[in-house]
Amino acid sequence: MYAIDLNSDLGESFGAWKMGNDDAVLQFVSSANIACGFHAGDPVVLLSTVRAAKEKDVAIGAHPGYPDLIGFGRRNMDVTPDEVYAYTLYQIGAVQAACHAVGAKLQHVKAHGALYNQAAKNRALAVAIAQAVKDAGEGLILLGLANSEFDKAAAEVGVPYAAEAFADRAYQADGTLVPRKVQGSMIHDVSLAVARVVRMVKEGKVETIDGHVIDLKPHSICLHGDSPKAVQMATEIRKGLEAAGIEIMPISEVIRR
Amino acid sequence: MYAIDLNSDLGESFGAWKMGNDDAVLQFVSSANIACGFHAGDPVVLLSTVRAAKEKDVAIGAHPGYPDLIGFGRRNMDVTPDEVYAYTLYQIGAVQAACHAVGAKLQHVKAHGALYNQAAKNRALAVAIAQAVKDAGEGLILLGLANSEFDKAAAEVGVPYAAEAFADRAYQADGTLVPRKVQGSMIHDVSLAVARVVRMVKEGKVETIDGHVIDLKPHSICLHGDSPKAVQMATEIRKGLEAAGIEIMPISEVIRR
Amino acid sequence: MYAIDLNSDLGESFGAWKMGNDDAVLQFVSSANIACGFHAGDPVVLLSTVRAAKEKDVAIGAHPGYPDLIGFGRRNMDVTPDEVYAYTLYQIGAVQAACHAVGAKLQHVKAHGALYNQAAKNRALAVAIAQAVKDAGEGLILLGLANSEFDKAAAEVGVPYAAEAFADRAYQADGTLVPRKVQGSMIHDVSLAVARVVRMVKEGKVETIDGHVIDLKPHSICLHGDSPKAVQMATEIRKGLEAAGIEIMPISEVIRR
Amino acid sequence: MYAIDLNSDLGESFGAWKMGNDDAVLQFVSSANIACGFHAGDPVVLLSTVRAAKEKDVAIGAHPGYPDLIGFGRRNMDVTPDEVYAYTLYQIGAVQAACHAVGAKLQHVKAHGALYNQAAKNRALAVAIAQAVKDAGEGLILLGLANSEFDKAAAEVGVPYAAEAFADRAYQADGTLVPRKVQGSMIHDVSLAVARVVRMVKEGKVETIDGHVIDLKPHSICLHGDSPKAVQMATEIRKGLEAAGIEIMPISEVIRR
Repeated sequence: MYAIDLNSDLGESFGAWKMGNDDAVLQFVSSANIACGFHAGDPVVLLSTVRAAKEKDVAIGAHPGYPDLIGFGRRNMDVTPDEVYAYTLYQIGAVQAACHAVGAKLQHVKAHGALYNQAAKNRALAVAIAQAVKDAGEGLILLGLANSEFDKAAAEVGVPYAAEAFADRAYQADGTLVPRKVQGSMIHDVSLAVARVVRMVKEGKVETIDGHVIDLKPHSICLHGDSPKAVQMATEIRKGLEAAGIEIMPISEVIRR
Repeated sequence: MYAIDLNSDLGESFGAWKMGNDDAVLQFVSSANIACGFHAGDPVVLLSTVRAAKEKDVAIGAHPGYPDLIGFGRRNMDVTPDEVYAYTLYQIGAVQAACHAVGAKLQHVKAHGALYNQAAKNRALAVAIAQAVKDAGEGLILLGLANSEFDKAAAEVGVPYAAEAFADRAYQADGTLVPRKVQGSMIHDVSLAVARVVRMVKEGKVETIDGHVIDLKPHSICLHGDSPKAVQMATEIRKGLEAAGIEIMPISEVIRR
Repeated sequence: MYAIDLNSDLGESFGAWKMGNDDAVLQFVSSANIACGFHAGDPVVLLSTVRAAKEKDVAIGAHPGYPDLIGFGRRNMDVTPDEVYAYTLYQIGAVQAACHAVGAKLQHVKAHGALYNQAAKNRALAVAIAQAVKDAGEGLILLGLANSEFDKAAAEVGVPYAAEAFADRAYQADGTLVPRKVQGSMIHDVSLAVARVVRMVKEGKVETIDGHVIDLKPHSICLHGDSPKAVQMATEIRKGLEAAGIEIMPISEVIRR
Repeated sequence: MYAIDLNSDLGESFGAWKMGNDDAVLQFVSSANIACGFHAGDPVVLLSTVRAAKEKDVAIGAHPGYPDLIGFGRRNMDVTPDEVYAYTLYQIGAVQAACHAVGAKLQHVKAHGALYNQAAKNRALAVAIAQAVKDAGEGLILLGLANSEFDKAAAEVGVPYAAEAFADRAYQADGTLVPRKVQGSMIHDVSLAVARVVRMVKEGKVETIDGHVIDLKPHSICLHGDSPKAVQMATEIRKGLEAAGIEIMPISEVIRR
């Protein structure tokens, strides 16, 4: 039997500002990446999001980011590995306490935005994140971009690892994502997106933007819920995967197979 | 045999700004209240302070405060109990992760500044803090002002509790502290301070500013290390207590007796 | 001829978080209170809001608040008058620079949320705000709650002053607003709201919740645009006032009459 | 007659955290770069620093930085020119209001830390800063690194400009500073530092680390006051320059010659 996790970012409201459609997203994901207060989220939002995920039986992940609220953690910053380690550990702890309070267990950690993108290409940053995941608690899983420095960092540090792929993004021959500004980088056709994920899961392959076929064996697919249209696409992708005989389950179960 | 804990606030530096004499303070305390990033401290400072406390065998506490960095958490704020609960839980989690990373265990939680002062007089806030302490982890101890709403909140919530008293502050007949602006509120004479703490520990009594004798049975004495003079006074108080046959030990051991 | 200003809060988005319907609000107000980055707004949002107000010929005001982004500046804080003075001056300056850059002139200053509410009852805080308004630039107008400490502070400091009233709020016999939680505090009937404002403008009177008639002579009416329904109500109030022969114009023109 | 300005960073305390020796620095500088609250400083500190500079007849400058308090504005960030423009304008305005309140006039603007360093090499960022300086008020002077993109940006935008050089730093053949980590990058010998500045002022030349002589014609020399030793060195440099017949005066007077 085939299996995959579906993850999405949640808990990105802040104070009086609302963001996202968390209720809808909790319907289609098996794992939630919950903002930790640095780039989005605040302690009240964090706690209520953890509670909602627990109620919907969605596995909980911490989604640490740079301390850049104005920039939503999307701007590259020259932060040292030691700082990244401390920032990540801090944010994981905040989510862990919320999990403990509601009787849930933290499953995974996925870096956000610029922290994710920079670490995907920078071993020292990826190692700093992986080490923080390892040091924060037993069995925590690092979720990172497939075919990136995250893979190597997890192996180097010795921490459970899950690779992430995107249903709606085109890939380059070297396994990296086609930058968003490039024509054809986004896949808007749901049936094509489903077919691509099915191939990733069943064959461990994906066709690149220039027609090659490369290895891509994700444990989790990142979906978006930031608009009604995104929610609809994500919902249809989930149905399509199930129709193709792929079971949706949390990362911790996928990697155990 | 008599025993008491000595606690002080640590980890109050922030980014490029240094504060306090943490190395000196770690010499005389048995328990450290470590700032969590809301009123002071940042993730890097927090982690290094937790590590230093662990190395010096000083028990570690979280010192959560209001999200008021400019005001150092010393300004009263109208924060709801639900917000206080979430803020406290979040900050405790951040320290717990740092503890886990260095192989230490979080011992206690003591609210900071205005959060401490407001909760000492407001049951709902005290209960919110106590509940966060209970929900954050097994065996965590709430450290609060003796003869305050903290006592009652801890009992109501059912969380391990330790009462705190001050060596350098005068008390009123109702067991509360004489406000700082009142003449005679501060005790600057070390031998008098020592004698008062010795009486608290051995008899469970203290003489008030107006000459009454009231019950005061602390598990921990709050000392300050914010100036070389404060460090010296704290060091002498510790010596004086030991000379009087009182053993200095962490809160977790004091309350177990 | 009769005249009144209509004001509303704008520029309350922050980074990636959107708030409000600024485009719609700019259609019905004659003066805009623009958030300054402490409780809402950021430099980019501030500048684009100032630019939009200038383009729509809406008079520009600074809307300083407490440094409490998580609480949207709505939580009371124990901030000293000196701090309030410095915070207000700082925030006014930020808006003034944006005004200068787009070729506009700052017209007024209205405190936000808890700062507004606390100062309305606390002379020292109201004076601190009034003094900051006076010291920030020639001719700046303080906009404050009618029948409050703002009136007295403006007179004491000697700064141009405009009184604000609410179209959708009930008043008490002492001229203060009926608290929101009280039954009947909000006026949902547009024609009643219009009739009340018309009476305020033409007679300088309003009927209180308990049937008395008191003096209330506002220069500006506060309207809300935080929901499509609020925008519709505000639009209809504006039409109603114009139909009653009341001209809508900026504060600076209203107070000059 | 020869003339030069001496500038230094001031107002870098934040809330309860003290930094620098502003009283001492005000004795030796003719222009002060005052932190604006993004990387350091807060509204209260800003105002009192502006007041102190005015009292000591030191010319006042705004010292805008990145919104990175934890990193003291020293970490490179991927901020767009539009964001830099808005951030700079906002911070300049905050200082202008403080100046207006105390009866002073803002003289110049100098970017701080990573913003300064990134803009020195990036025309678009330098132009964004220069444009903000121009748009914030008549006659404001941009102070930037000599031989950098700041020169070109000021010319492009058409804003008064002053070039800055360092007394205690070695230069490379291309006119840029030798990176701090390179052996010989710092000049610790006061008489050598004085001799170098004298040559810059009188001949418009400096000897590079590899023995070449290049053009360097600064209007202002940056001095440091972050330690008692730095204060002493700065004081001696000032005396040395005066002894060499160079008059110390604010930037606005130096560039007028």
